[in-house]
Amino acid sequence: MSISSHHSAERAPHIGTLPAGALGTIADVEGVSVGHCTLAEGALQTGVTVIRPHRGDPFVDKVPAAASVINGFGKSVGLVQLDELGTLETPIALTNTFGVAALAQAQIRAAIRANPRIGREWSTVNPLVFECNDGYLNDIQALAVTEQHFNEAFDAASSDVASGAVGAGRGMSCFDLKGGIGTASRVVSAAGRDYIVGALVLANFGRLPMLTIDGTPLGRVLAERAAAANASSDKPEQGSIIMIVATDAPLDGRQLKRLSLRAAAGLARTGSVYGHGSGDIALAFSTAYTVPHGADFVALPPLVADHCLDPLFRACADSVEQAIVDALWSAESVTGRDGHRRLSLRDSVPDLAQLLRNSAR
Amino acid sequence: MSISSHHSAERAPHIGTLPAGALGTIADVEGVSVGHCTLAEGALQTGVTVIRPHRGDPFVDKVPAAASVINGFGKSVGLVQLDELGTLETPIALTNTFGVAALAQAQIRAAIRANPRIGREWSTVNPLVFECNDGYLNDIQALAVTEQHFNEAFDAASSDVASGAVGAGRGMSCFDLKGGIGTASRVVSAAGRDYIVGALVLANFGRLPMLTIDGTPLGRVLAERAAAANASSDKPEQGSIIMIVATDAPLDGRQLKRLSLRAAAGLARTGSVYGHGSGDIALAFSTAYTVPHGADFVALPPLVADHCLDPLFRACADSVEQAIVDALWSAESVTGRDGHRRLSLRDSVPDLAQLLRNSAR
Amino acid sequence: MSISSHHSAERAPHIGTLPAGALGTIADVEGVSVGHCTLAEGALQTGVTVIRPHRGDPFVDKVPAAASVINGFGKSVGLVQLDELGTLETPIALTNTFGVAALAQAQIRAAIRANPRIGREWSTVNPLVFECNDGYLNDIQALAVTEQHFNEAFDAASSDVASGAVGAGRGMSCFDLKGGIGTASRVVSAAGRDYIVGALVLANFGRLPMLTIDGTPLGRVLAERAAAANASSDKPEQGSIIMIVATDAPLDGRQLKRLSLRAAAGLARTGSVYGHGSGDIALAFSTAYTVPHGADFVALPPLVADHCLDPLFRACADSVEQAIVDALWSAESVTGRDGHRRLSLRDSVPDLAQLLRNSAR
Amino acid sequence: MSISSHHSAERAPHIGTLPAGALGTIADVEGVSVGHCTLAEGALQTGVTVIRPHRGDPFVDKVPAAASVINGFGKSVGLVQLDELGTLETPIALTNTFGVAALAQAQIRAAIRANPRIGREWSTVNPLVFECNDGYLNDIQALAVTEQHFNEAFDAASSDVASGAVGAGRGMSCFDLKGGIGTASRVVSAAGRDYIVGALVLANFGRLPMLTIDGTPLGRVLAERAAAANASSDKPEQGSIIMIVATDAPLDGRQLKRLSLRAAAGLARTGSVYGHGSGDIALAFSTAYTVPHGADFVALPPLVADHCLDPLFRACADSVEQAIVDALWSAESVTGRDGHRRLSLRDSVPDLAQLLRNSAR
Repeated sequence: MSISSHHSAERAPHIGTLPAGALGTIADVEGVSVGHCTLAEGALQTGVTVIRPHRGDPFVDKVPAAASVINGFGKSVGLVQLDELGTLETPIALTNTFGVAALAQAQIRAAIRANPRIGREWSTVNPLVFECNDGYLNDIQALAVTEQHFNEAFDAASSDVASGAVGAGRGMSCFDLKGGIGTASRVVSAAGRDYIVGALVLANFGRLPMLTIDGTPLGRVLAERAAAANASSDKPEQGSIIMIVATDAPLDGRQLKRLSLRAAAGLARTGSVYGHGSGDIALAFSTAYTVPHGADFVALPPLVADHCLDPLFRACADSVEQAIVDALWSAESVTGRDGHRRLSLRDSVPDLAQLLRNSAR
Repeated sequence: MSISSHHSAERAPHIGTLPAGALGTIADVEGVSVGHCTLAEGALQTGVTVIRPHRGDPFVDKVPAAASVINGFGKSVGLVQLDELGTLETPIALTNTFGVAALAQAQIRAAIRANPRIGREWSTVNPLVFECNDGYLNDIQALAVTEQHFNEAFDAASSDVASGAVGAGRGMSCFDLKGGIGTASRVVSAAGRDYIVGALVLANFGRLPMLTIDGTPLGRVLAERAAAANASSDKPEQGSIIMIVATDAPLDGRQLKRLSLRAAAGLARTGSVYGHGSGDIALAFSTAYTVPHGADFVALPPLVADHCLDPLFRACADSVEQAIVDALWSAESVTGRDGHRRLSLRDSVPDLAQLLRNSAR
Repeated sequence: MSISSHHSAERAPHIGTLPAGALGTIADVEGVSVGHCTLAEGALQTGVTVIRPHRGDPFVDKVPAAASVINGFGKSVGLVQLDELGTLETPIALTNTFGVAALAQAQIRAAIRANPRIGREWSTVNPLVFECNDGYLNDIQALAVTEQHFNEAFDAASSDVASGAVGAGRGMSCFDLKGGIGTASRVVSAAGRDYIVGALVLANFGRLPMLTIDGTPLGRVLAERAAAANASSDKPEQGSIIMIVATDAPLDGRQLKRLSLRAAAGLARTGSVYGHGSGDIALAFSTAYTVPHGADFVALPPLVADHCLDPLFRACADSVEQAIVDALWSAESVTGRDGHRRLSLRDSVPDLAQLLRNSAR
Repeated sequence: MSISSHHSAERAPHIGTLPAGALGTIADVEGVSVGHCTLAEGALQTGVTVIRPHRGDPFVDKVPAAASVINGFGKSVGLVQLDELGTLETPIALTNTFGVAALAQAQIRAAIRANPRIGREWSTVNPLVFECNDGYLNDIQALAVTEQHFNEAFDAASSDVASGAVGAGRGMSCFDLKGGIGTASRVVSAAGRDYIVGALVLANFGRLPMLTIDGTPLGRVLAERAAAANASSDKPEQGSIIMIVATDAPLDGRQLKRLSLRAAAGLARTGSVYGHGSGDIALAFSTAYTVPHGADFVALPPLVADHCLDPLFRACADSVEQAIVDALWSAESVTGRDGHRRLSLRDSVPDLAQLLRNSAR
């Protein structure tokens, strides 16, 4: 937090010095919308989140995109082709690890419905599905996620983006607290123009002692308390984080790969060291243009030159860190399978405002 | 073919000068077994092939492995984690592009059945599924492949490896001819010891004019005939090839990645230039040791030094080329969706023996 | 060679069915020029080759480029930044392994002379230097290559491209024969327009038994003769090949990386399996546009769509294979350090025409 | 800094909760030694630092190693082969950007002196040289670094590691302050055994407003002061950071690559977002075993299993962050070319102790 500002538990601290966009979500990037489908019944605490990069059909109008696999302990699908071609051609779907196959199938069916020539005269479609393991709260072995849940999340997509224990975030844990969906945005000037960078994360990583909020090593205090309360947490993490970054800046696939890697900086500032068992993957896409299916030539707008990218890099890191904080701030406490319970940051730390104020600089 | 040898259409030419193993299949690598489940009814011409790297449970005893994505226009799953950890932990499953999700789910269920702690106390499992697009012969939109087919292929696994229009190869096309499953092996001496390298391919790539058999540009002749017969084939390829390479040489993940890339040399010698629309992926694994799940230390046998790898590299390239030739030689003609028909090489070229003899050197 | 054509030893066979450009060299790509400086005195048999991608200053007008490291046993410099930024900013210099440092320094000095702000107000410059090990013929330990040789090669650059035992190719060996510089070009139609692809190789790889000329395994015959003559050659290769590919097609860095990898197909067709000790590296660049130093935005021409790249891929593979054949055909026999001698293909195989005619198809 | 501890300007804060080794430097890893050669005369403010991974000859006994290129705007050499083979075979040399060629040549000569068969019967040697751009303080265009400086640094190598404005660090800047060499170590328990992780950085990155010391955004305060003093600093960074990580834990090349990437987490926590113009490269090596040149088999000790790596990952991140802090704490103010001057952190912030105490948590 900034050295002179005050914080209450009511609002999450503002990360860095760049301003947020109007909504403070990934939907500040014009055209981007998000929908959730949440399953919350007993041992099933899971769901689906869909990010639509634009209002059209991404198979017809493909979206420049690239990903960085920061730690590859993950089962996301679609990255091989994304890496080769620098475009995505379905919405971005998020869910639990064992729901990936159902969503991949759902994406294929949806693409065929919209484009019946897929897999006939046309090539096949590359479904893009990311995942984290929500097995602590959710009965992941139940394989409860279905095509219907994808369709509901897709249909629900809007620019009004909910965060917390919703959609794919329903069963996720973060720093041994309740995690889930978080989102944020930043406005920056690069090459003389203003651009928006927005982030949406599915936060499911970290052990409590690592937790760092805006530079404050809060997790150490909380871990000491927890230790006093006999709640050991020395198991390795089995979490993950998916970080989706959107921008309206005109960038190509190579540049978007560079941008996506800067999510690792924001992630590190929350305390992560990209643990062995954590599938840490970042994807960045641009809404500044599309690549039409089947066109013989691809016309690009003038691209922001690489030497002007630093403000966008910073906006990416800050948005991702802010989005992780948002997930912790927004998620409510959840009880799931076998009575497992994850407390929200707020429920876990009643004196959060006090703690942060004490360390305010 | 070798300069002095004779060939008949009865037997495929022997690629290179290295000897084949006893079976001439990937099962020459001790412990490796292969099973097929074939769907061949009307418009459904597809299937599943399963390769078991050893007789045990690969989740419990993980297998050192690595992959090279030669051209990433593909939808295979499991490669992100394989690349990070250098091991595979499920059987290797092959099927059509839109069957990947069903098989990933089947792999997950099978792993949970065998290890109920997966996704609970243990981490999740990384299903490994490769694919090619058989949409010309097969009604791929029907999404006909199911978990049951995976289980049947798995149960059928043996060291008696069928090739041709079987299993995942049922609906595949290669050089505008009938393709499918092919397999081969080579025995080599490296660092003073004998090792086996075996290959199994799912061959679904190439347009007719490229076809090269053991250095002979047969496709040019055939394309001239086809042109004379008015059968144009100037569409870009939408195929792919999956190349699975097994060896009993003790190699680690980094070395297996090096080995897997040499599949690209064998592939190129058949006429491929790794076309844009072709997902060309090679995976190599070693049976010389396993990595036990949960062990704190991993003991490796002495590894073949990198400067001794050349014979293994050559065996990989030759096995892959031979396996592609095997697929063409073994596959029967197949009629599928909308009356589409792919002729086998033999049916397409009645004078194959004559043509190859004419160009024998 | 094509099935019906005749060949004499006078001319190398034409690889594939695509036509060559007017010059049949990399200089068919408008603006590309090449210069050599050759050292040929006693134990010093080495040199420098410089490729200028355009007539201007590549630091001021950077060139879209990308490389594929097919086998990374090599000491070339400049690839880290090339991979990050997708541009090259110096001429491409080729020399022997221990001459890299001298040429990197020469490139730096030349860039500073032309742009005195480099390393002051401006960032530093990324010298691009490739190498092969000519230690069999050349006293590589003498570190004989100097800045002066770079300058001479640069000054000599023209569209009249010599090949054979010249420049960096002076001391190189290929398939135990004399190798060196080779060059070729192909004209293709992609997306409805004609483009040129040109290649220049520094060929220094392979053992004799692998040698394959246009599909004919000539090396096997020659190795049998050599074996009869008691000239063993079972040492692992310590060679390498550098493959530079130029095109006037408008492609971005990601696409050029795809294009560069297709050099591996052409290389494989000559018999290589990318041996352990061979640094096999391909670089592709486009002359269709430049990226001006310091500009805030980069305007690109419409790019050829990825699904239209196959003809360019094929032209790349064919050009590289043809360029390797050209190196073998053009290089004269050379005697170097300690009386080591490499025979040219022609000197080594007096009946070359006869041998190829016998296997002509 | 920890919430309850006190800090004075005399000592740098201790990053994280892991203990340092006995020396608190990279030399805590048994066998590792470091030597500097410093040039500090007028406009020449530069130098050479050499890290010897063990006391022997690394060409004869190669060292398992791997690197992560976090941002590839850099001119380091040796990474292509390192990536392919997973070993280093020369000492690690650090210098300024335009000194790389001289040091590469020096490494080659030194290797040949020790092993006269290099480039003759044996393959060539792969010199490993890293760099940052010290052009603000140093007349980098003078190309002042020579082979002699490398030899002096090599000869000076000991376990007594100096940090600050010495060796390659002499002319480096960091957050618009004086940067240079920093070093640190951590002791951790992994898989039931204690291991050491040590780091040495060449810190030359960042603009003042980003500077974050142990979570405290000190740079914002300092930037406000600087702005008040009219010292604008809105230019993009042209810096870089090289992060060398050593450990005695038995890890192979793949695992060392994973370890090296965790340097990015430590770097991010100091405020970096891996700026466009910053060549951010991390290399990790293990001293637990060596790979003998020319041996046919490589015997490895049992390797720490991947699922036990988290403590080592954390130690890597903490060591790197601590080493950056050490560079800032240790470096004295330096005046160089054209009267350019970089103040040390202490000279720049007389009330540093006060500022950090105010924000202590």
